[in-house]
Amino acid sequence: MTDLVRDFVEDNIADLHADLDAWLRIPSISTSPEHAGDVRRGAEWFAEALRRTGFPTVEVWETGAPVGAEGGAATGHPAVYAAWPSEDADAPRVTVYGHHDVQPVDPLELWETAPFEPTVRGEELFARGAIDDKGQLLFHLLGLRAHLAATGRTSPAVHLTILAEGEEEDGSEHFAQLLRDRAAELAADVVVVSDTGIFDRATPSMCVGMRGMTYCQIDLHGPDIDLHSGSFGGAVPNPATVLTRIVAGLHDADGHVTLPGFYDRVVDLTPRERDLLAALPFDEAAWVAGPAASRGTAGEAGFSTLERIWARPTAEVHGLHSGYTGPGQKTIIPTDAMAKVSFRLVADQDPGEVETAMRAYVAGAVPPGITASVTFFSGGVRPCLTPLDSPWLQAATRAMETAFGQQVLYTREGGSGPEADLAEILDAPVIFVGVGLPDDRIHAPNERVVLPMLTIGAIAAGHLWSELAAAAR
Amino acid sequence: MTDLVRDFVEDNIADLHADLDAWLRIPSISTSPEHAGDVRRGAEWFAEALRRTGFPTVEVWETGAPVGAEGGAATGHPAVYAAWPSEDADAPRVTVYGHHDVQPVDPLELWETAPFEPTVRGEELFARGAIDDKGQLLFHLLGLRAHLAATGRTSPAVHLTILAEGEEEDGSEHFAQLLRDRAAELAADVVVVSDTGIFDRATPSMCVGMRGMTYCQIDLHGPDIDLHSGSFGGAVPNPATVLTRIVAGLHDADGHVTLPGFYDRVVDLTPRERDLLAALPFDEAAWVAGPAASRGTAGEAGFSTLERIWARPTAEVHGLHSGYTGPGQKTIIPTDAMAKVSFRLVADQDPGEVETAMRAYVAGAVPPGITASVTFFSGGVRPCLTPLDSPWLQAATRAMETAFGQQVLYTREGGSGPEADLAEILDAPVIFVGVGLPDDRIHAPNERVVLPMLTIGAIAAGHLWSELAAAAR
Repeated sequence: MTDLVRDFVEDNIADLHADLDAWLRIPSISTSPEHAGDVRRGAEWFAEALRRTGFPTVEVWETGAPVGAEGGAATGHPAVYAAWPSEDADAPRVTVYGHHDVQPVDPLELWETAPFEPTVRGEELFARGAIDDKGQLLFHLLGLRAHLAATGRTSPAVHLTILAEGEEEDGSEHFAQLLRDRAAELAADVVVVSDTGIFDRATPSMCVGMRGMTYCQIDLHGPDIDLHSGSFGGAVPNPATVLTRIVAGLHDADGHVTLPGFYDRVVDLTPRERDLLAALPFDEAAWVAGPAASRGTAGEAGFSTLERIWARPTAEVHGLHSGYTGPGQKTIIPTDAMAKVSFRLVADQDPGEVETAMRAYVAGAVPPGITASVTFFSGGVRPCLTPLDSPWLQAATRAMETAFGQQVLYTREGGSGPEADLAEILDAPVIFVGVGLPDDRIHAPNERVVLPMLTIGAIAAGHLWSELAAAAR
Repeated sequence: MTDLVRDFVEDNIADLHADLDAWLRIPSISTSPEHAGDVRRGAEWFAEALRRTGFPTVEVWETGAPVGAEGGAATGHPAVYAAWPSEDADAPRVTVYGHHDVQPVDPLELWETAPFEPTVRGEELFARGAIDDKGQLLFHLLGLRAHLAATGRTSPAVHLTILAEGEEEDGSEHFAQLLRDRAAELAADVVVVSDTGIFDRATPSMCVGMRGMTYCQIDLHGPDIDLHSGSFGGAVPNPATVLTRIVAGLHDADGHVTLPGFYDRVVDLTPRERDLLAALPFDEAAWVAGPAASRGTAGEAGFSTLERIWARPTAEVHGLHSGYTGPGQKTIIPTDAMAKVSFRLVADQDPGEVETAMRAYVAGAVPPGITASVTFFSGGVRPCLTPLDSPWLQAATRAMETAFGQQVLYTREGGSGPEADLAEILDAPVIFVGVGLPDDRIHAPNERVVLPMLTIGAIAAGHLWSELAAAAR
């Protein structure tokens, strides 16, 4: 079957390679103040590439409040915004997210070739930012050209917006505020995130969910002074003992979280989702020995490791402190005890409800003579999940399967990123279209992109707008 | 009924007061190196007082190893030893324990009169060491003279040994070794400790037991690096969680310690012991508000507060540490977690058996992926208990009741002191004959002795040797 998109991409892939070579030479390291000018230069380069691709509106947006009342320079790195409305007025609105800044390069001596001198060896291109995230933003430009060429259109089949952040590798400090300030320009029916990867090269996949989180500190206060455990031990409440009961009591014997109502809103994995997760060629033994560095697994009974880290909520303790922690023995009943505890949440759990349940649990677990305070450090982060039967997801899956020429599976993320802000602030489902590989060494020396993956990414992007437009009809 | 002992004590009480005034002027502060000479001078003074009382053998014993191979000065403060064998060859052997060193005096500005210028106001004498412990050692000298005068004997009715330690207020560093080195001279059928007090002035009492202890640190090791709780949370064992389960699991819902066999050797309180403890005018509300500073009580179901702190074994946690304890949030699964835990023990629990049970408990509670080490800081301290039907205790009780002219009740100590070494190393029961009051301000500014209490102490001591000799027959 003829694939005009594929033909266009393959005929013009040299353009993408040339653009990538030029952009990767700009050392746009957002964490280094001395590279602030490079970050801006990289933004301007990408803005120019967007204009050259045909976007009628391209802007470089400042972020962060200006310094001083007179309005000096903005304190954040700039973002790049581009919009190309569809000639079809009722086409869906799509916002593509990526970032133009890159990670630092230390330790420099471990790079085989200079990080900002892109070098091709075989099918790999080595440079900082090659896959994270310049390569993934650029495949969209070639993909869009292929979309227009293959369909004969003069505008995209969707109202297309691109947002390239400049602080993703520096904590996204101003990102949420930017989204709120620019909500009108960024309004979308679906968000496409191109900053992630696939399960492995033989197993194309798309992420369909991320966990949320809420994080608190428990402080217990017992006797007003450290008491001698010989004189008082056994007869007064010990805040350290009470703390261990509170923390240990957060799980039952099967590893379920015990907070009342904790699972009430959890969207259970469907049999199909479980089957597809189980189809991923996950090597648990290698994971335990390597990435997890844990020498073992543990968790909620009845769920696999991938289900536990991606699709199930958790309670984890991150820190404990009480009393005497120096060498040897000191026989006190301590005055205070502290624990830091967070809950990872999955759709459709609500951080506020979990906070309320946790406060009630602690209050109910504290005996007379102990006072407790529970501090939540923020309102929490909402989980997000795209159901497998979402038309947007099915459309994007078709584009990806066409590009890869094989079935696409589904993954999730256990943590939370700026994607959570996108989903929550723009109030739109998030679809992940990325072609990174787990061994691309992002954030490490010798970051690379496997060039054929960018070709596939461009083909997927070239099909995506027609598929999404069709799904909206 | 004529009491020749009382008559002699009352006729000669001025001798005790004069001796006390002289001895209290020596600032024998054992924790201050600059007072080392004063501690030695205080020891020499007491040795001379013992000789003057008639002890045929009086020695000042060096403690601690000599410095250097050539044998320089000993590193410890000296102890004073005196022995006066009975003319009755088969009389019991009794060793009296006290100490001649005193606590520091800071904050000096809070003393109403200078701490080493003994000052009488009404029936009280104010000076550092007045009750702790110079006054209590001195009442034995007048008591012994009264015993000889009242019975017409030329030697005591028991083989009498006195040991006055010089490091009691400085941690008794060399005391156990001294007892082992001098076990032959100190061999005793019963030990009389005169370094404690009575319940309150209206409620004379004797201590009949002390808790022992064994103390450990639990170290758990989980993942080899701190793991991101988003990427790994819910699927790998968290050492902090496991630690809280281990510590929380040491008690059941009724406050009983859960270690298997923990209570097997516990000598239960007899109904009479419980009745006598309940007869003490213990003001629990005042204790909670003041000394315990705890705003509440908690502990083993079915036991009173005094029973819990004196007569029941405990598990208490003294310190916790794991992961991140700074401000705000850090989302890690920590590599390590630590707890410090001790067990207070009562007769006839064995510290070694509790250590074995604790090691087995921790080993059984550690899941795959977590390694544990349990470190006990010593072999522990054995508990000691004198049964109420002990002939020695009954004899001492008669002496105390004669002196006080009323019933004597029984208390215990929740902690452990050098008395535990006496009981264990000399392998003899310990009887507590002391006349301190809870508001004597030992270790604090304005320490005092209520002089009539010393008179009572001397009368009790004057009856004690006849009573103990009779009990042995």
